[in-house]
Amino acid sequence: MGKFGELYQSGDWKGEKHVPVIHIKDKVKKGEIVELRVNIGEEIPHPNTLEHHIKWLKVYFYGEGDKFPVEIGNYVMNSHGEYGVFTEPDITIKFKVEKSGIIYATSYCNIHGLWENSKKVEVE
Amino acid sequence: MGKFGELYQSGDWKGEKHVPVIHIKDKVKKGEIVELRVNIGEEIPHPNTLEHHIKWLKVYFYGEGDKFPVEIGNYVMNSHGEYGVFTEPDITIKFKVEKSGIIYATSYCNIHGLWENSKKVEVE
Amino acid sequence: MGKFGELYQSGDWKGEKHVPVIHIKDKVKKGEIVELRVNIGEEIPHPNTLEHHIKWLKVYFYGEGDKFPVEIGNYVMNSHGEYGVFTEPDITIKFKVEKSGIIYATSYCNIHGLWENSKKVEVE
Amino acid sequence: MGKFGELYQSGDWKGEKHVPVIHIKDKVKKGEIVELRVNIGEEIPHPNTLEHHIKWLKVYFYGEGDKFPVEIGNYVMNSHGEYGVFTEPDITIKFKVEKSGIIYATSYCNIHGLWENSKKVEVE
Ligand SMILES: [Fe+3]
Ligand SMILES: [Fe+3]
Ligand SMILES: [Fe+3]
Ligand SMILES: [Fe+3]
Repeated sequence: MGKFGELYQSGDWKGEKHVPVIHIKDKVKKGEIVELRVNIGEEIPHPNTLEHHIKWLKVYFYGEGDKFPVEIGNYVMNSHGEYGVFTEPDITIKFKVEKSGIIYATSYCNIHGLWENSKKVEVE
Repeated sequence: MGKFGELYQSGDWKGEKHVPVIHIKDKVKKGEIVELRVNIGEEIPHPNTLEHHIKWLKVYFYGEGDKFPVEIGNYVMNSHGEYGVFTEPDITIKFKVEKSGIIYATSYCNIHGLWENSKKVEVE
Repeated sequence: MGKFGELYQSGDWKGEKHVPVIHIKDKVKKGEIVELRVNIGEEIPHPNTLEHHIKWLKVYFYGEGDKFPVEIGNYVMNSHGEYGVFTEPDITIKFKVEKSGIIYATSYCNIHGLWENSKKVEVE
Repeated sequence: MGKFGELYQSGDWKGEKHVPVIHIKDKVKKGEIVELRVNIGEEIPHPNTLEHHIKWLKVYFYGEGDKFPVEIGNYVMNSHGEYGVFTEPDITIKFKVEKSGIIYATSYCNIHGLWENSKKVEVE
């Protein structure tokens, strides 16, 4: 019986459409309000139908020297055709951090499971 | 025993810091990917502490002639000081609609309850 | 442009399948861990398919003399046939309160919108 | 830069208070509505305060022979003292599966990060 964490998949988002793309400045200032965009399918679009869609995006921060990651936010995409409405897996959020660390973006496709990506952020 | 819906509060966001501010074009094209920003405290900042913070933002679409609203997305702000991380109540999402209707943005403050705002969107 | 709260629908759960059914003792003790079951479709089952299902259940507590309701919990049902898995709109949660008040249960059907029900709880 | 999945921690719930405890029958029938209880701190209670609490519980099913796990449900505990209300990290949910597989329960503590546990379920 494998560990849950091993179920997260990753890869190069330019070739694998499920991998969350992380858009954030490489360097931010301590306590500055930082903007972060996470989206799925930037290079190769992912389906968005009732049968097959991205259900949520989550963002974590894992600070240098910290023992545990912190969950910044969780976004659930809830419309996949109902009454002609389609929610895109594309979100821009804002937050503040006090030190350098790693941003993790995770996502869930109702057919293809859990995916992750990460990016280093330097706080100056 | 009052109805649940009556617990939603509203007002002018320029004077009441809890009211979600809705930023979206007045006119969009059918099937176009539309950008929507919802934030709290644009004029008067809201506290963001463990003791007092905005916990989530939700967005609905209620199409002209439809009987029921559709939930577009739900964003939960999860960090309020843990390890120096603060999630801001400010989100930009994307979606598609096929006809004119009303956008509802709702929010929840852990101390001051439920809030709402709305804005008409015309699809041409 | 109507108010958001007016979109919540209600009724008698014995005749209207969308109304959340609230199961809780009428009287609880202050600080006791209370069990609460909320389910949909107890008398008349609601569909559970990709096309038509209950997406979430939320529970609030509105204490006597309080100005604002508090959100106790939010449960999202995420499987509606994927790989043969179906999540039922039926949840039992636990919490503590310190005074009498009203429990509100709310739900969302992806086709028929927002629903609510309420039940008084007396703390002795 | 480590992988996200490696941040999930586990252990014996009798000695480590963060590990989700999974209560489910060992054998269930195909298509039967199964009851699953997941709780935190059954042996050693976990704190439930604004400063330190369990924020959510998630449940997945990973069927034998399937390539990907399915998310059954997500429960967010939202009250940690506001107006005297405390949501317990203890939930009972219901679902149906069609074949044997593994149940994964995951949780998030706002101070001690991500945790997981798993249990095999045989469908007869
Ligand atoms: Fe997919
Ligand atoms: Fe407030
Ligand atoms: Fe329905
Ligand atoms: Fe902890």
